[in-house]
Amino acid sequence: RKRRAPANIYGALRFLQKNNSMDERSRMVKNLLSCDNSGGEARFRRTEIDFSNMFARDLLPAKNGEEQTMQFLLEVVEILTNYIRKTFDRSTKVLDFHHPHQLLEGMEGFNLELSDQPESLEQILVDCRDTLKYGVRTGHPRFFNQLSTGLDIVGLAGEWLTSTANTNMFTYEIAPVFVLMEQLTLKKMREIVGWPDGEGDGIFSPGGAISNMYSVMIARYKFFPEVKTKGMAAAPRLILFTSEHSHYSIKKASAALGFGTENLILLKTDERGRVIPADLEAKVIDAKQKGFVPLFVNATAGTTVYGAFDPINEIADICEKYNIWLHVDGAWGGGLLMSRKHRHKLSGVERANSVTWNPHKMMGVPLQCSAILVRERGLLQGCNSMCAGYLFQPDKQYDVTYDTGDKAIQCGRHVDIFKFWLMWKAKGTVGFEQHIDKCLDLSAYLYNKIKNREGYEMVFQGEPQHTNVCFWYIPPSLRGLPDGAERRERLHKVAPKIKAMMMESGTTMVGYQPQGEKVNFFRMVISNPAATRSDIDFLIDEIERLGNDL
Amino acid sequence: RKRRAPANIYGALRFLQKNNSMDERSRMVKNLLSCDNSGGEARFRRTEIDFSNMFARDLLPAKNGEEQTMQFLLEVVEILTNYIRKTFDRSTKVLDFHHPHQLLEGMEGFNLELSDQPESLEQILVDCRDTLKYGVRTGHPRFFNQLSTGLDIVGLAGEWLTSTANTNMFTYEIAPVFVLMEQLTLKKMREIVGWPDGEGDGIFSPGGAISNMYSVMIARYKFFPEVKTKGMAAAPRLILFTSEHSHYSIKKASAALGFGTENLILLKTDERGRVIPADLEAKVIDAKQKGFVPLFVNATAGTTVYGAFDPINEIADICEKYNIWLHVDGAWGGGLLMSRKHRHKLSGVERANSVTWNPHKMMGVPLQCSAILVRERGLLQGCNSMCAGYLFQPDKQYDVTYDTGDKAIQCGRHVDIFKFWLMWKAKGTVGFEQHIDKCLDLSAYLYNKIKNREGYEMVFQGEPQHTNVCFWYIPPSLRGLPDGAERRERLHKVAPKIKAMMMESGTTMVGYQPQGEKVNFFRMVISNPAATRSDIDFLIDEIERLGNDL
Repeated sequence: RKRRAPANIYGALRFLQKNNSMDERSRMVKNLLSCDNSGGEARFRRTEIDFSNMFARDLLPAKNGEEQTMQFLLEVVEILTNYIRKTFDRSTKVLDFHHPHQLLEGMEGFNLELSDQPESLEQILVDCRDTLKYGVRTGHPRFFNQLSTGLDIVGLAGEWLTSTANTNMFTYEIAPVFVLMEQLTLKKMREIVGWPDGEGDGIFSPGGAISNMYSVMIARYKFFPEVKTKGMAAAPRLILFTSEHSHYSIKKASAALGFGTENLILLKTDERGRVIPADLEAKVIDAKQKGFVPLFVNATAGTTVYGAFDPINEIADICEKYNIWLHVDGAWGGGLLMSRKHRHKLSGVERANSVTWNPHKMMGVPLQCSAILVRERGLLQGCNSMCAGYLFQPDKQYDVTYDTGDKAIQCGRHVDIFKFWLMWKAKGTVGFEQHIDKCLDLSAYLYNKIKNREGYEMVFQGEPQHTNVCFWYIPPSLRGLPDGAERRERLHKVAPKIKAMMMESGTTMVGYQPQGEKVNFFRMVISNPAATRSDIDFLIDEIERLGNDL
Repeated sequence: RKRRAPANIYGALRFLQKNNSMDERSRMVKNLLSCDNSGGEARFRRTEIDFSNMFARDLLPAKNGEEQTMQFLLEVVEILTNYIRKTFDRSTKVLDFHHPHQLLEGMEGFNLELSDQPESLEQILVDCRDTLKYGVRTGHPRFFNQLSTGLDIVGLAGEWLTSTANTNMFTYEIAPVFVLMEQLTLKKMREIVGWPDGEGDGIFSPGGAISNMYSVMIARYKFFPEVKTKGMAAAPRLILFTSEHSHYSIKKASAALGFGTENLILLKTDERGRVIPADLEAKVIDAKQKGFVPLFVNATAGTTVYGAFDPINEIADICEKYNIWLHVDGAWGGGLLMSRKHRHKLSGVERANSVTWNPHKMMGVPLQCSAILVRERGLLQGCNSMCAGYLFQPDKQYDVTYDTGDKAIQCGRHVDIFKFWLMWKAKGTVGFEQHIDKCLDLSAYLYNKIKNREGYEMVFQGEPQHTNVCFWYIPPSLRGLPDGAERRERLHKVAPKIKAMMMESGTTMVGYQPQGEKVNFFRMVISNPAATRSDIDFLIDEIERLGNDL
C-alpha cells in the first residue's frame, strides 16, 4: 500500500525558521500555524500536519477536532486546486487511460476495494489524488467528447457551497434560500422562453431524460387525469411522436410510463436531421384513423448528434390543429435562447406546452442542472402530488406554497440551483450570451476549416445550426476507393481506431457514432469555454496524425 | 447594494511588515504571496486581493487567470470552513428564520434577482456568505428535522472532489474510476444484504423515490416484459401492495408508471406500524379472485414516521407462495444492515428481489446517495436499455460492459458514489456500524427519558425499532382534560406552535405530523453523528420551555 510523505512545510515557514532568532521564530511560527481572529472570523491556513495517524473519527464532530478538520479540508483543497490548474494547462493530458481490469488490479497501490477497518486520512488524501489522476479532465480545453464540458470556476464554487450546505429541496423549511432561487430562476427562464410575465411552472430535475419524462407525464395528466388513479387502462391508446434523430429519453419515457415504445412514432427528418412537419401530420392522421389518440409531440431544439433544430412553429401549428401537447426538448439547444444572434433557431418555442432546458450543457453549468418548464400552472402539482402528511404540513408557520416537494416525482431532491444562480449573478445574461456566441463561432471555424479540406467529408451539407460538426476523416488509403460496401466497412472502423489512439495517448477526446445508414463518423461539439481556435487546429492535426496510416 | 471591505491581510504578513527590514520583508512577502513550487506541486495560499474589480471573466480559462482563480477559490473555502466551524458550534443557531416575502424583499442587500450584467467577484463572495447565513445548518448537533442530517467531513471532501471532476456516470470512457467504484460498492452492499457472492445488479439513483420507482419497473419487466414495447394495455390489471405507513413514493410510482394509485393496495399495520402479513395474504387472494394479477409487494424496512420494520420473512413466504415480486424499501432502515446488533430487524431481506438503500440517510453520506439493488442480473438493462448509438458504441477499445448508462432511466447521471466510497474507506465498515449503534443508543436514551415523564405521551408503546421516537408533548393546560374532541383539537395545535417557536428562535429543529387518526405529534429521528445526550436533553428542555404556557 502506497503512503505519501508528510506534506511539505510552507516555503515561508522554512524561510522564517532559517532567518530569525528563536524568539521571533516561535512567535512567527505560532502566527503562521494558528488561526488569526483579527478579521472577526477565524482564518485558517494550511500547516504541517501528519495525517498518517489521523482518522475520520478525529475530525469534527470529534472533541477538539476543529484544527484537524480545517487542515484536512485545506489539504483536500490543495489537491483540487492543483487539479484545476492542470485541467486548464494544455501541456497536460486530457486523460491517463487504463482498462477496467488494470484499474481493478490496483494501479501503483490505488486499491478500489472497501475494507472493514478505517484507512488513515493520509491514505484518504492519496486516494483523492489517485481518483483524479486516473479520471478524465472534462474541463480540459481539448475535451470535446460530450455535450457537457468545461469547468466553470464560479459554478464549481457554487457546487462546493451546495455540498457544504447539504440540504434538500423538498421544503422551504430546510432550504429557504435555494427554494427561492429556484423559483426566481425558473421564472427568468420562462420569460426567456417567451411566456407572458414568465408565468407557468417548472422544476429542476436530475437530468434531461427525467425532464423529458416529466413532460410526457404532464401531458398525460392534462388530457387524461384519471390515469393517475386508474392507470393506463382508463385511457384510450395514446400515441407519442418524436423524430428519429431525437434523444432516446423519449423512448425510455414511453417504456417506463406504460405507453410502450411501439406507441412512440418516429418522424422522418430531412437530411439535416430536422423533422418534416408533413410527416408528422400524416402520422397524426393515420393514428386517429386507427382510433388511437395522438397525445404528445416532442420537437427537438438541438439534436444530440446533428445539432438540428426542428421547425417548432410548423410543428406547433399541427399540434394546435389536433389538440396535441407540444414539448420542446431543448436540453442541448435551449442555451441558444440566451443569444440574440442564435435564438431565432428556437422560433416558436413560446408556443410549446413544456420545455426541457439543461444549463449543464450549452451554458457550462456543472453537472447536474436540468429544468423542465411548463406553461400551465398547477399541472406539475396535480400530476405528482400525493400530499404526504409528514413532509407537507398545512399548519406550518410560513406560506407552504413554497414547499415544492410534492411537484416532484422524487421525494428528496438535490440542490441543483445554486451553482446556476451564482454563475448567472457572476456572468450576467450577457455572459452566457458571449459564451454561446463564442462556441458557435468556433464551430463555424471548424466547419469552414474542414468542409473543403482533403480527407474530410461532411455528414450533412451546410453550416451546422448548433456547435455539432459531423464529419468523416478519410485516411489516404481510402481516398481512392469507390463508394461501396468495402469502403463503407473500412470507413466504419476509422473513427473508433482514431478515438482509441486518442484515448491511449490522452491528447484530446471527441465522440463518434453511426447514425441510421451512415457509418461511424466524428461528432464534434463545442460547449467548453476553455476551447480556442488553436484547440480546434490541434484536434484536426491529431486526427490526421493518428489516422494517416490507417 | 452591500459591499464587503477587502479581505483582511494575514496576521503573519502584518507581523512581518512591522518587524523586519525592507529587504527581508520584500523577500518574505514575495514568499508568502506567491506559489511555492518546492514540493513538486505548486502550493497556493490566500493573499490580499481586491475582488471588487474582478469578474468571472478574469478567472480561468482567462489568460493569466490562474492566480485570481486560486485566490477566489481559497476565499470561497474560507467562507465554507467558517460555516463548517459554526455548524458544529452549539452556541450558534440552527437557522436564522425568515419568511419567504422577507427574503424576496432582500435582506440587508441580499438580492436574489438575476440581472443582465455581471456582478463583481466581491459581490459573489458576499452572495455566498448570505446564502449560508439565511440557510439551515443541517449538520448542527441540534438539527433533527429530517432523516438526513449531519455533515460528514470526509463525505464533504468527496463531494468537493466530485464537483471538481465534473463528470457523468453513463460511460466508463469519461468516468472510469467512478464507474468501478460504483460497481465494487454495489457488490459490497449486495453481500451485506446477503445475496451469495454479492451477485446481482444495481445502480445509484437520484433518491429513494426513484429507487423505489425502479423496483416497480423492474418487477413489471420481469413478469410482463412486453409492457416495454406494447404498454400497460398488454398486461392484465396489475396490483401493487404496500403498507399504509409506507413511503408515498410507492404511490407516486404507481401513478407515474401507469398502474394507477387505485391499483396500489394499502396494507393494514399493527399499532407499531408493521404490516400484518395475514392482511397481505387476504388482499392478494381478493385481488386474484377479482381476476387481477398481484405483481409487487413493498415491505418497508424503517418506515418514515414510526421507523417500523415490516416482517420481511413472513411477507417473503407469501410472495413466494403467490409468485409476487418482493421489494424491500430500506431507504431509511437499510443502514442497520451495517450493525451486527441491529441487522436482525431486516431478517429475510436476502429473500427480496430488490432493495432500496439510501446511504444518505442513516449512514450520514451527503445528499444524494441512494442505491437500488436487484437480485437478478440483466433485468435493469433489459428494462431500460434503448441502445443509443451515440453513447454506447460496441466498437470502443475497452470492455463496454462497464458502460452503465443504458441501465438507467436517466441519460446523464450524477456521480453519487465517490463521497460514499471515500467515507467507507475512511471509516471502514466498523465505522458505519459504530455510528448506527450510537444513534440507536441515543434514541433509546430519549425514549427512556420521556416514556414516563410528566407531560409526555408516546404515540406507540414499546422501544422503537429505529431511531424514530414519536411522542406528544402535553402542555400543563391540557393535562387535566379528558380525552375527547376538545383535547384532540387543542393537542393537534401544540406541535406546530412549538415548532414555529423553535424555528423563530433557531435553537433546534424536529419534525411533526399527524398520522391516520392521530393528531400532530413530534417525530424525533437521530442520524446526526454530532448529536449527544446533551443535545437530546436540550431538545426536551426546549420543548418544555416553549410549550409550557400553551
